[in-house]
Amino acid sequence: MDRIYTNEIGSHIGERVHLAGWLHTLRRMGGINFLLLRDVRGIVQVVVDTPETLAGLEGMLPETVLRVTGDAVAEAQAPGGVEIRRPQIEILSPVRDALPFPLNKPELKAGLPTFLDHAVVGLRHGQKSALFRLSAGVMAGFRAALNDLGFTEIQTPKLVEAATEGGANVFGVKYFDRTAYLAQSPQFYKQIMVGVFERVYEVGPVFRAEPHDTIRHINEYVSLDVEMGFIRDHRDVMAVLTRVIRGILDHLQSHYAAELAQLSAVLPAMPPEFPAIYFPEAQELILQKWGEDCRGEPDLAPQHERWLGEWAKQAYGSDFLFVTGYPMGKRPFYTHPNPSDPRYSNSFDLLFRGTELVTGGQRLHLYQDYLDSAAARGYTDLGPFETYFEAFKYGMPPHGGFAIGLERFIMQLLGLENIRLATLFPRDLTRLAP
Amino acid sequence: MDRIYTNEIGSHIGERVHLAGWLHTLRRMGGINFLLLRDVRGIVQVVVDTPETLAGLEGMLPETVLRVTGDAVAEAQAPGGVEIRRPQIEILSPVRDALPFPLNKPELKAGLPTFLDHAVVGLRHGQKSALFRLSAGVMAGFRAALNDLGFTEIQTPKLVEAATEGGANVFGVKYFDRTAYLAQSPQFYKQIMVGVFERVYEVGPVFRAEPHDTIRHINEYVSLDVEMGFIRDHRDVMAVLTRVIRGILDHLQSHYAAELAQLSAVLPAMPPEFPAIYFPEAQELILQKWGEDCRGEPDLAPQHERWLGEWAKQAYGSDFLFVTGYPMGKRPFYTHPNPSDPRYSNSFDLLFRGTELVTGGQRLHLYQDYLDSAAARGYTDLGPFETYFEAFKYGMPPHGGFAIGLERFIMQLLGLENIRLATLFPRDLTRLAP
Repeated sequence: MDRIYTNEIGSHIGERVHLAGWLHTLRRMGGINFLLLRDVRGIVQVVVDTPETLAGLEGMLPETVLRVTGDAVAEAQAPGGVEIRRPQIEILSPVRDALPFPLNKPELKAGLPTFLDHAVVGLRHGQKSALFRLSAGVMAGFRAALNDLGFTEIQTPKLVEAATEGGANVFGVKYFDRTAYLAQSPQFYKQIMVGVFERVYEVGPVFRAEPHDTIRHINEYVSLDVEMGFIRDHRDVMAVLTRVIRGILDHLQSHYAAELAQLSAVLPAMPPEFPAIYFPEAQELILQKWGEDCRGEPDLAPQHERWLGEWAKQAYGSDFLFVTGYPMGKRPFYTHPNPSDPRYSNSFDLLFRGTELVTGGQRLHLYQDYLDSAAARGYTDLGPFETYFEAFKYGMPPHGGFAIGLERFIMQLLGLENIRLATLFPRDLTRLAP
Repeated sequence: MDRIYTNEIGSHIGERVHLAGWLHTLRRMGGINFLLLRDVRGIVQVVVDTPETLAGLEGMLPETVLRVTGDAVAEAQAPGGVEIRRPQIEILSPVRDALPFPLNKPELKAGLPTFLDHAVVGLRHGQKSALFRLSAGVMAGFRAALNDLGFTEIQTPKLVEAATEGGANVFGVKYFDRTAYLAQSPQFYKQIMVGVFERVYEVGPVFRAEPHDTIRHINEYVSLDVEMGFIRDHRDVMAVLTRVIRGILDHLQSHYAAELAQLSAVLPAMPPEFPAIYFPEAQELILQKWGEDCRGEPDLAPQHERWLGEWAKQAYGSDFLFVTGYPMGKRPFYTHPNPSDPRYSNSFDLLFRGTELVTGGQRLHLYQDYLDSAAARGYTDLGPFETYFEAFKYGMPPHGGFAIGLERFIMQLLGLENIRLATLFPRDLTRLAP
């Protein structure tokens, strides 16, 4: 007899069925014992009323893995309107220890460090598994939206010879008799691959050796990377990003409605086009509306982003806001300047509910511009960039792209207070396991 | 005017169109100049016959990025039956250096080291881009097959506290004030996630610090990983693997027929079920058929695999052959033994044309079995495994899985002589760039 899932029982009423899963909980109600069996699709009630079967349940702990064979019976009182009677119960994997925290309550009541220490079992809680199903949905929606737009998937190396984004925040790896680094992003590779496929994307891990312990940073995360050629400027990239965000959210609504409901997700407000504000104008707005003069500063503080997020919601009914034209000095050396005012860049951040979710922009595409930009930044040794620059020597079209942090997307979609709650097995200053 | 792609010109005959791409080659035939413009979808012929336009082409090198506006005209003599006349040509990115090797010949004529040194442009060659489009197709076919079977995608950390597969072949990472390692596989994590989603898969990089320089090994590759719960034994895993392989090849045939033809791919012979041979019986067969006595040896040599591959082709008309029951001693400590003969394991390799493509099997699922297996292997310090073993303490179903190497799949499908030819930017003993 083939195993059926708990959500399939309704179409097997009157039959003897075979189920398998975890002992979610044992309940005694009015002298009858109910065993709740959980599998990946749901939970079903099993009625245990013979002394022999009851004896077998003696001392059985939650999470014991069971195979249950029984009669599927319609029962209005049972959760889902169906229950299993006359069960034969076989133990596939016994449990001898009490769980570090209960998994069978609607809310998971473990503190964050305790949860993370025991994530290998904690992730079985319904709220956790729903959240990481949403993560899978975000990746699938991202790929589907880009496949529709003619993008090709790539997988680029994570072991690299030189730091891609500059700075000291790069992990060193002992690579035989020399040192390699872990890629901080697939930036160079996705640009190079625009020369091959014009439009590319990658879903993969990136590594940031930032020695900060904040609620918004982890040292390894999943980056959803996009790069595209033959653009006018960054506005073409923003248009694709808008379609991708919309595509992801449509995919979640179509395929993950139950998970969104279970996690009380509030779907973002999105006008047909996301509003955009130019960086110096954003600073003017902050002065006029909130009285804080940040004009001349090279970046926005988190509070500024929050204010701008509120403003976008009020003025445009949008949870998303593009801020464009960040000053060149704060952007990486491959950033394309605004041709009509080269103090500012053809780059953007996309704020989601007042927090940066995506960074992107147009890149330099001319070989000489790379040499000049590297020189202007004082990069005296171009050795590590040589093989990268070669792509630009041989004809690269105007191009640009962006990167979405998977965990941050989930964090902001669900209003989580710590990015670790959106990360399967987070890595931070103190945590490398499980 | 919006850009159209070269493969769309046929539906714009008689119109003025706007194209963009790379200068593939310049040809003079019978006093007329033809410019071949390449974009991601193909190549189109542009007729250049006015002195002004000709002057603009003076000294222009291949791979120059161009925008071409012109009339789409049906012309039986032109490749594809259409050409562009009265062109206006604008240079988007000039090229000043000669290419390291020509990109506009049907065959790429660079030696492997030269090609790899200049991969950032070499990948633009039509044979190379076709190959890596196939790689994208393998990933997409893999995911589609597993999504259909109820699997959930996961992304697990690559920075880990302990070597997953044992052995010394692990890269160390300076992780703040301690040492982390690069995951040799997502083995532990995919097993743990069976406790959450029952059926999971992951596409991601794995890292092997093997100090070997062979045509079949690279130090970073893309692993297509699968793990599934509630199995009878390894045969359920083999059945899913068979469907996945079939799903990938169906996907390639449906969506990548042009690339398969361009690369002269010979599609594998596949009977409805892949044949399987038990390890000691394979050794007997080798003795009887080829006169070599390898009975008692713990593994198959490459020559043995080749013989078995030939035999499967002759006896079953199959390019695929499962070898099951490898001796326990040669398999990792999480391997499930064959209950009726514990010298052998419930594991398998899948040979593809006489070379190992996939390794998989049933895993141990009982906590005590993990403790016993680790002790039997002489692992005295269980510390690094502690958080992993916790998943088994709290009820794990019988489970198993497998891993397919993406690059090796492409290598064997196309009959390539070196895995580096199937790797976007290979990492080996001496190569970390580009």
